[in-house]
Order: sequence, then structure tokens, then C-alpha cells
Amino acid sequence: MRAAIFRNGEIVVDTMPEPKPGAGQVLVKTLACGICGSDLHARKHAHRMVEMARHVGRKPMDLSRDVFGHEFCCEVLDYGPSTERRLKPGALVCSLPALVTPAGPQGIGYSNDNIGGYAEQMVLSEPLLLEVPNGLAPVHAALTEPLAVGVHAVAKANIRGDEVPLVIGCGPVGLAVIAALRMKGLRPIIAADYSPARRMLAEKMGADIVLDPAVSQPYASWAEHAAMSADEKAARPPFQAHLPALKPALIFECVGVPGLLQQVFEGAPRDARIVVVGVCMETDTSEPMLGIMKELNVQYVLGYTPDEFAASLRWLAEGQVDAASLVTGRVGIDGVAKAFDDLANPERHTKIIVEPWR
Amino acid sequence: MRAAIFRNGEIVVDTMPEPKPGAGQVLVKTLACGICGSDLHARKHAHRMVEMARHVGRKPMDLSRDVFGHEFCCEVLDYGPSTERRLKPGALVCSLPALVTPAGPQGIGYSNDNIGGYAEQMVLSEPLLLEVPNGLAPVHAALTEPLAVGVHAVAKANIRGDEVPLVIGCGPVGLAVIAALRMKGLRPIIAADYSPARRMLAEKMGADIVLDPAVSQPYASWAEHAAMSADEKAARPPFQAHLPALKPALIFECVGVPGLLQQVFEGAPRDARIVVVGVCMETDTSEPMLGIMKELNVQYVLGYTPDEFAASLRWLAEGQVDAASLVTGRVGIDGVAKAFDDLANPERHTKIIVEPWR
Repeated sequence: MRAAIFRNGEIVVDTMPEPKPGAGQVLVKTLACGICGSDLHARKHAHRMVEMARHVGRKPMDLSRDVFGHEFCCEVLDYGPSTERRLKPGALVCSLPALVTPAGPQGIGYSNDNIGGYAEQMVLSEPLLLEVPNGLAPVHAALTEPLAVGVHAVAKANIRGDEVPLVIGCGPVGLAVIAALRMKGLRPIIAADYSPARRMLAEKMGADIVLDPAVSQPYASWAEHAAMSADEKAARPPFQAHLPALKPALIFECVGVPGLLQQVFEGAPRDARIVVVGVCMETDTSEPMLGIMKELNVQYVLGYTPDEFAASLRWLAEGQVDAASLVTGRVGIDGVAKAFDDLANPERHTKIIVEPWR
Repeated sequence: MRAAIFRNGEIVVDTMPEPKPGAGQVLVKTLACGICGSDLHARKHAHRMVEMARHVGRKPMDLSRDVFGHEFCCEVLDYGPSTERRLKPGALVCSLPALVTPAGPQGIGYSNDNIGGYAEQMVLSEPLLLEVPNGLAPVHAALTEPLAVGVHAVAKANIRGDEVPLVIGCGPVGLAVIAALRMKGLRPIIAADYSPARRMLAEKMGADIVLDPAVSQPYASWAEHAAMSADEKAARPPFQAHLPALKPALIFECVGVPGLLQQVFEGAPRDARIVVVGVCMETDTSEPMLGIMKELNVQYVLGYTPDEFAASLRWLAEGQVDAASLVTGRVGIDGVAKAFDDLANPERHTKIIVEPWR
């Protein structure tokens, strides 16, 4: 079968053997698979990913060969041994990008053992299959995984209900956070991005106020929309009476480049909670004194739970997220390498979907 | 009056005018004032403190003159105008190191306007006075402030009850955290320090297991004492069944030097909550990817609330904390400069108390 393969820093098209479903596994045809910012990061910083995986005791990948792709929607083709075969061949399915093994879950997409979604076929674990409901198109069902990232980030923020959220960066991660915040009902949602196209999408996802950091300082604008009510002001303990009367800040860092967290430390108000959703793969520097003097809280997040993943697919199928506006391009296997380059331009692209059957 | 004054990086003894209590203020005789690690930091990194204070909008100090000292116990001498005079002259009092002003609280100890505790007299705000109960000795009542730092750190950790705490560093801050954890009843308390004297004090404060990081890796030792019960293990969601069956980690970083947080990131188990109580005044570097892959939470803390301060004084007066073993030296104003140097040796000293009347 054909696949777009990561080899020594480049994406190349080649053929490879078709996978065979093992016990408890399902052979599927890949219908649609989104290109994730992490894939772009991984192409550039593969050595760092290997180093960090080793640090946390995960099996690192061999840099010479890998098929990326962990945001997929597939069609059931055939079953391996010891399977229940509940879904008929032809059924549309999503799955967490993982295989269930006796030794625990194994990743799909950053693993030499398990083929990702930039190939014509892959194998999945039967117990993880989720049937795509409501006739949702595969190209939109493939957004389940990136939406789940936002849903998880919002869940990890332990929202009480009185916070005013600020989303820094409106790439696919920031947009998913905005969509998840909107479903949670926390408003007003304030979002910032330098790109006009991304700001327009942020509004479509449910942001109430969108800012261009080149024009207005995001934290000052946030403060304008975060004033306490008279009741909240009166309820403060006396020793806080001299502080600015602002609601709690909940800042989502959705950029993931060195220096960004320090910018958030500088701009954040006292007692802000910062959720780091952007994946910064390089060593970063910051001023701990700023964190200390403001008593900041930083929650790093990654991935999602199976429940959050399933809920994300359901919400997409119910039309609660404007999936169509997020998909800005569709390519076949031959278009993956160029798509990686094209995604550098936020004005043109948000999510490019690979359709390996094209 | 005489005072130990910080001038251009050195502590010098000189005379200065006696302070006059303004409206709502009380003139006090300083009976005892602890030397804080922050004072040692401030002597070394005064320019950084000024820079950071400017960053968060506080009034920075003039480096050429300041009287440090914010851990004090005093005797009431006289009152300024517009005071209630509830406590008689001669009463022993503690106070938050702050003055109440119409523009909000102003610090005592890192402020050119307000004289700190390394001087014979100072002024305090009448509404902040707390009478020392139970005949607690001034030298022990002066421990209220550093104990409150630990009490606040533990309060900010939002303890649920199932965590196993690990305290990294058993200087005055770490020891206060251990004492506060013990009062909270969260056990076993695991603590690590290279110094044998500090490890002995950690035990006196209530640590159940004390470790020498030169001999045993703190995080591995922590894991030995953090195994889940059979019930906790059975209650985990299926998708976490492959992870090590450990109770939640609550790590208190009580050292405050560059690189320490990164060490914690490397050693911490998945989902650990890290409370940064150590004050690192320099720029720090870390690997955000470690935080992300482990979904760590970092809570920076500073200071305490008035309630936490008052509770700390009460607990000391009730004998709930072994105050006597923390005080390792007592000096007069002439001994402050040497005491700053002596505190560099953790085997000899933990807390040196300045008694300006000596």
C-alpha cells in the first residue's frame, strides 16, 4: 500500500506492506486524517521527542521511519482473531490513536510499530472503536482528536464558573479550546491571534471578543472585560480590598514556542491560572519571581481521556462545533509534504485533511 | 537609635532617627526579629528584587538604604493619633510585616519608608496588632511569620487527603511546610535534605521519613511510600490501569535556586502537583515537554493571609510546633552582618534571631 512516510526529517511517498490485524484488532481503510501541529513539530524536533520519551520511560521511535497521523476516521475492512465483530465492514469509525496491548496502550502516529493515518490502511483495537453517528462526514469526524485536546484542557482547568478565560493563540489547539469553553458556557471568551483569518475562525468557534496583539495588549483588554460585579467586590476579604477588582483569570497558552510562557507570566494578573496546551518542544526560560509574586498556577496538559474523546465525536455529530470552517484543505498521500509547508501560513490554512484513498 | 542597615550590598551598623507613629500607628520596641533566607537573597540579588517589583507595579526600594527584618515580635511603647489603644504599653505583639495606608498595604522590611526589625524601634499599624498569648517568648513568637509561609503553602496546595507529600529542602521554609503538613494531618510526610542537622530538624517538625539525596533518590523513595491501597487501585479508570499504582504526589519545592524546578520536573511522577515555596530570584530554565508529558501542575506561592498569620501565632503559643529547636542563634545589632554569613552553614544554623536591645 502507499503511505507518506517520515524519513530522516523529510516526508516521502513510498509503498509498504499492508498491515495485518492481530488478536483483538481491526483492519481499516483510512478515509480522512488531519495534519496536526505536533506532526510539524515532530518533523522539526524529532530528536527532542525521542529524548523526552526516553525521559518519561516511553518507547522512543526510530527516526529513520515512521508514518505520522493520529487524527483519523476510518472504514472497517476486516477483523483479526479473537474479535467480537460488532460493527460490519463498511462501518465508519473513529478511535483514540492507541492500540490496547497486554503491556498497556501503545501510541499510533509516533510509533514505528503502529502505522498512522497517512497511509491507505491501518489497524485499530476493536474495544476502542467508536461508530461515527448521524452521518457525520469522515473529514469532519477526523476533527474528533483535535477537539478532544481542547475539551481536555478545559476539563483540567477545574472551572468554578466565575473565571474569565483568555485564549492566547488561535491555531487548531486554541480554536478547540474556544469551542470547548463555549460548550462549557463560560463567557465572555476572549481570544488573541495576530492572524485575521484565525481571529475570524475564533469568532466562529464562539469567542466573544477577539484581539490582535499588534493592536491591543491582550491582558489590558482582558481586564476591561473582567471587572467584578458590585456583589463580588463586596465579598472580597478586607486584605484584598486594595487589589484591582477583577474576576479570576484563566489563561490558555495555545502557542507552544519558547518565551511564550514568560510573556504570559509578565501579562497575567495576580492569582491567574494558566493552562499550557501549546507544546513547546525546546528548552524554555522564565522568571520564577514573577510567578511567585503573582502566585500564578500553571497546569500543563496533554491528550484526553476516552470519555472526553467520545464526547468530542458526539458534539461534532450533533453540529455543536462548526467543523466545516476548520477544514481548509484536503490532499492525497502525494500532497502531504506540501501540506506540511502550506500549514506554515495561518492566513491560508487551519486544518488540512489527508485522504489517502485519493 | 541603632540599626543594622543594608547599604549597597553590605549590612552596616549605624544610628538613625527614631520613628514617629502616625495616625493609626503604634511605636514599638523590637524584642526579636528572625533573619529570613529572603534577606540573604535580597543582599545578593537586590537589583533583581527592584526589577521584579517594578514588573508587578510595586514601589521598588532604593538600594542605598534599607532596614531589613520582617519576622518580628515587639513591645508596645506608645501610640500615634487616632488610635484605640486597646493594648497597654508593655504588651507583647506580633504583626504582619505591613502598614495599613489609604493606598493599600505597604511592606515592612523591604521598604525605604518603613523600618524593619533590625533596629531598636519600629512603627506598626494598630489594626494589625496581635497580642502574643500564653506567655510565649518573643524569640519564639518571632517564628510566626516563617511558620505562616508554610501554612500558606499547604493551604494553596488544596489538599484532598489522598496525597503523599514530598518536601524538597529542609531550610526554614521546608521546615515550616513540614510543621504545617503535620498540623493538617497529611501523612506520611517525606522530606529530603543533604544536611544531617536539617534532616534531624525535619523529624522534629513531624516528617515521617527523611532522606539524604546523596544516598537515596527522593522520588524513588517517595514512590515506595506512596503505593495505592487495593481499593484505590480498583477504583482507577480502566485507561489508567497500566500506570504505576501510586497515590497523588504533592511536592513542595523549598530550595529556590535555578535548575531546581527542572530537577523536580525530571523526578516527579505523572500528575504531580508542585508547590513552589522556595524563592528563586534568578532566571530559570526548564523543559516544558516534561511538564506536558506528565501533566504537572505548578503552584507558585508567596506570603500568607491575615488568618493564616494569626493561626500560626496561636499554634506556636499552643506548643504545636517545636519552636525552641528552630532557633539556633541570638545576636544583637552588631552581630547581624556575621549572622548573615553564618547562616550559609546549614549544619550550624537554621534561624538566627536578632535582639536589637542586646
